[in-house]
Amino acid sequence: MLHVLMSSDKFELLNQIKYPADLRRLDLERLPEVCKELRGKIIDEVAVNPGHFASSLGAVEITVALHYVFDTPEDRIVWDVGHQAYGHKILTGRRDRFCTNRKLHGICPFPSPAESEYDTFACGHASNSISAALGMAVAANGSGRHVVAVIGDGAMSGGLAFEGLNNVSSTPNDLLIILNDNDMSIDRAVGGMEKYLLNLDTNETYNRLRFKASRWLHSKGYLNEERKKGILRLNNALKSALSHQQNIFEGMNIRYFGPFDGHDVKEVVRVLRQLKDMRGPKLLHLHTTKGKGYEPAEKSATIWHAPGKFDPETGERIVQDCSNMPPKYQDVFGETLLELAGQNKRIVGVTPAMPTGCSMSIMQKAMPDRVFDVGIAEGHAVTFSGGMAKDGLLPFCNIYSAFSQRAYDNIIHDLALLNLNVVLCLDRAGLVGEDGPTHHGAFDMAALRPIPNLTIAAPMDEHELRRLMYTAQQPGRGTFVIRYPRGRGVRKDWQCPLEAVEVGTGRKLRDGKQTAVISIGPIGNDVELAITKSEEEVAHYDLRFLKPLDEELLHEVGKRFKHIITIEDGTRNGGMGSAVLEWLSDHGYTPTVKRMGMPDEFVEHGTVAELKRICNMDIDSIVAAIKETKK
Amino acid sequence: MLHVLMSSDKFELLNQIKYPADLRRLDLERLPEVCKELRGKIIDEVAVNPGHFASSLGAVEITVALHYVFDTPEDRIVWDVGHQAYGHKILTGRRDRFCTNRKLHGICPFPSPAESEYDTFACGHASNSISAALGMAVAANGSGRHVVAVIGDGAMSGGLAFEGLNNVSSTPNDLLIILNDNDMSIDRAVGGMEKYLLNLDTNETYNRLRFKASRWLHSKGYLNEERKKGILRLNNALKSALSHQQNIFEGMNIRYFGPFDGHDVKEVVRVLRQLKDMRGPKLLHLHTTKGKGYEPAEKSATIWHAPGKFDPETGERIVQDCSNMPPKYQDVFGETLLELAGQNKRIVGVTPAMPTGCSMSIMQKAMPDRVFDVGIAEGHAVTFSGGMAKDGLLPFCNIYSAFSQRAYDNIIHDLALLNLNVVLCLDRAGLVGEDGPTHHGAFDMAALRPIPNLTIAAPMDEHELRRLMYTAQQPGRGTFVIRYPRGRGVRKDWQCPLEAVEVGTGRKLRDGKQTAVISIGPIGNDVELAITKSEEEVAHYDLRFLKPLDEELLHEVGKRFKHIITIEDGTRNGGMGSAVLEWLSDHGYTPTVKRMGMPDEFVEHGTVAELKRICNMDIDSIVAAIKETKK
Repeated sequence: MLHVLMSSDKFELLNQIKYPADLRRLDLERLPEVCKELRGKIIDEVAVNPGHFASSLGAVEITVALHYVFDTPEDRIVWDVGHQAYGHKILTGRRDRFCTNRKLHGICPFPSPAESEYDTFACGHASNSISAALGMAVAANGSGRHVVAVIGDGAMSGGLAFEGLNNVSSTPNDLLIILNDNDMSIDRAVGGMEKYLLNLDTNETYNRLRFKASRWLHSKGYLNEERKKGILRLNNALKSALSHQQNIFEGMNIRYFGPFDGHDVKEVVRVLRQLKDMRGPKLLHLHTTKGKGYEPAEKSATIWHAPGKFDPETGERIVQDCSNMPPKYQDVFGETLLELAGQNKRIVGVTPAMPTGCSMSIMQKAMPDRVFDVGIAEGHAVTFSGGMAKDGLLPFCNIYSAFSQRAYDNIIHDLALLNLNVVLCLDRAGLVGEDGPTHHGAFDMAALRPIPNLTIAAPMDEHELRRLMYTAQQPGRGTFVIRYPRGRGVRKDWQCPLEAVEVGTGRKLRDGKQTAVISIGPIGNDVELAITKSEEEVAHYDLRFLKPLDEELLHEVGKRFKHIITIEDGTRNGGMGSAVLEWLSDHGYTPTVKRMGMPDEFVEHGTVAELKRICNMDIDSIVAAIKETKK
Repeated sequence: MLHVLMSSDKFELLNQIKYPADLRRLDLERLPEVCKELRGKIIDEVAVNPGHFASSLGAVEITVALHYVFDTPEDRIVWDVGHQAYGHKILTGRRDRFCTNRKLHGICPFPSPAESEYDTFACGHASNSISAALGMAVAANGSGRHVVAVIGDGAMSGGLAFEGLNNVSSTPNDLLIILNDNDMSIDRAVGGMEKYLLNLDTNETYNRLRFKASRWLHSKGYLNEERKKGILRLNNALKSALSHQQNIFEGMNIRYFGPFDGHDVKEVVRVLRQLKDMRGPKLLHLHTTKGKGYEPAEKSATIWHAPGKFDPETGERIVQDCSNMPPKYQDVFGETLLELAGQNKRIVGVTPAMPTGCSMSIMQKAMPDRVFDVGIAEGHAVTFSGGMAKDGLLPFCNIYSAFSQRAYDNIIHDLALLNLNVVLCLDRAGLVGEDGPTHHGAFDMAALRPIPNLTIAAPMDEHELRRLMYTAQQPGRGTFVIRYPRGRGVRKDWQCPLEAVEVGTGRKLRDGKQTAVISIGPIGNDVELAITKSEEEVAHYDLRFLKPLDEELLHEVGKRFKHIITIEDGTRNGGMGSAVLEWLSDHGYTPTVKRMGMPDEFVEHGTVAELKRICNMDIDSIVAAIKETKK
């Protein structure tokens, strides 16, 4: 009871804010207090209900200032990656439900338009905010609606953000881009420009002039011509005439303001008010600190990106004792990669900004010159790997399955077509749990299967992952995809000898009568448990290779079994089950085939166990499917 | 005979050059003559054997200079889009076979490593050269091998090129990027910098200093830190200290040289020689003219991009009389879009640099404010469309099927997940003919089918295209994909009334016994011809919607027919036939199913008719498949 009262006092102002309209009724002077309480709320909540942390702390003042100055939800705020949006959620009707964040049927891990009208767009994958917000700004034309994109410096390295920036000035719009910069130091040109940018009042004349001139050029067709060609917009004649300096944004005809201190909420409000009704596209550059206001997080932003549970008072992270658990697939990948790289000098590592997440950091630490972290740039990661492979290196390129969708064309055009020996490791394949629909690795098997030349495999356990990695780096393998899930495997004795498996062969794990289960990947372990539980005599095959298919295995299955169940941690449509069905049809076998896997809908967030149940992919569902064939 | 002698004289120098080594034996003074002959050769050849024209003419001097200065094929030249590479082909062992360009079993439309060791990478899709060449430059480290990427200004607008640029300075390499700029005016900073850049000798000191300092910073870990974060590399402290100006490349720590006249071959040779052994990444900016040296092409580069046959003397294009032919699907799309946009004010058009190719130019001309050409930026085109749709506009976003692979994630994350009403028109779906494997729209059906929420349709003829477009723009449709092929349809009377079809319904075109053919898209017209030719009683269903499937139709087929043939202009693996197979299996039907479509290999180039035969998708193959079921 005492605790409740204290909490209530602690959040005195926040508790009066259900929606941004309530915030806007407050006096400007009180905003620093709101920020303090909001920050406290995030700390308290994430300490007991883990989630993304440091980014949201860094964005507290930006969030408060935006909802204070703009008329949300009528005005649109587009967040680039939702890591930074916890404050936004708390201020927009979800304060009391925030404790359900990331839980099944709780509020979404990232902003979601289906959940709240304050959430304007999908933001699970980085770098899309400028393009989406530009679309909204074009749609808003003349309505008086304001549109703001908030993008972090990391997301700026994605090609999509550049494509967006490159198009911002090509069409009339009043988009405001906020660069939430917690790391990058964009060089504002030295000298006179600095004064221009730090003082908006002085700058006003220049901006008005510039905007008018730009309109004039547009009306005369000069900018239309430029737009028609769709080329890099680095020509800024007027700008050059007025000043001898420019930065990349000014070069793209986007007015640049900043940098300002993104933690001075009153200052941010002042600047936003000045920019709010300024015509034409503009960029506001704010410096912030990841983890701001929580000392341990300020010191180690990477650890505190998503810290798990912690004691908010002491900053002590409550680390589970995992010494008795099997290792994470990530660590097996990382350790094995280092081991292989020690033996094979051609091996290099490539990761688009996820060295820690995929544990390539292990090799990076030991062999820094042989690991390339290319930033959030999945397409480049793949094509760059292709170039290295073309001239004799052997890249292990590790991308999260859902993010590899960004590199789909690169995989086809820059790897498979040339049959280049790149090992493409798709981490977080299948259901990922609390990160939800944008992060599930649902589509990789269905999307990659039709691509010629690819080898596609999925290990059932840690030993198999090691064997597949070893196999993939043998000479002459072509493009070799290995998909595996987030989290822990099943074997404490993961460190088996490295030996090759035959490409395109599966494994018979147990024999049976009438019914055979074909699985691919770690869900095969659930199948083993389910068969035991069912007490039925059922065969189980680990297909291991989605491509090429093990034809010998499939002939055996086709000849011997009346009923086949396929199960995979990926979409049913077009996936492994579909491949098996195609093969059986092509070869004249007609068993019944029940395909189990992710359904034809975006799967929500929750624990992996909860989601497996929802997708009818849990052990009980497998048991039921087995029983059904035995009727 | 006279003609042969004249030709032979005309190409006196060129005929002595079989490989670049022969070129390198010539005196520098003779290079302008080589260029003149090479240009003449391209003109003569393309006049009778149509292909890409203006781009290759513009790159003649760059091509000659590169092979003269660099030790190809040991040194690597990576072309960005192969349009510009005809001169390269002629100089690298393919002079006498150049007359087979783009023909079945002839030389490839774009550089292809499988064809020649001088072709270093795939270059059918724009913007990949910097990433691929960077990979090669990293692989070359220490070997003395030079790597050069040649990228046009149009390709620079692709996000992948930016991702590449953004990573160039993050790792030790000596990459040379040549910006073949035939349109863009990159602002070199005014004032002192211009002199720096135009005079390499003066510049040398500055560059050496800069490179050393950059190495030093690297060794001290400063640049490593920057690389580790993978962020925009705009900070260039040393540069700022030395000069008050910078451009985007300098801002990314890529040394910039230029602009120079890209048609002064001796000057280009001089500059390349100076840059050749300079350490560190650098960019050479060359101005060129598309169509250079052929007056009609210089005047109208767009028309002469790929002009078809023409009279090389007069410049008269030999235009086929098409008045008696059915229209192109492209024109039906363009005219219908304009018609719909006249009725529905919410409609806007979006194209990534293909207004003419997809005929959105028709609407662009009539309603310039409602058409957005975003440049080569497929990902942005889709996400930008999503943003517009989110706030009430109704974008028709037209992308070539093969290039839509670049936007795969955007379709999933920025359209389907939000169920936004965007009409995604995939032009050039299926076999495209002479442009070959990089351009066939093979994978769209298989790749998009697993994505929840999508509606996916393919019209069998022009009327159906118009009806589907009309249907797609009706309220509440969500994300609606319409795929259709390159080239002409089957109906001269294409201008039918606009009326809706029911989403998820196919059409029974004829009834039959025992065997039913299910087709999707215009290949249904071949099926009709094949059935007539077979003289068998065979049913034919036009599925029309790949998603959602017409369950009533499929129940009828499942119940009534022993044999089913599916045929589609797309990959067999995972495509429409696979969807039908899944559905039949799920519903307990067990007819035999023969799936026809593109095989599990990259399909070469040739006429569409030739390729259909190779893929066993031609009329005779359909007849044979029908006969097979009647045995």
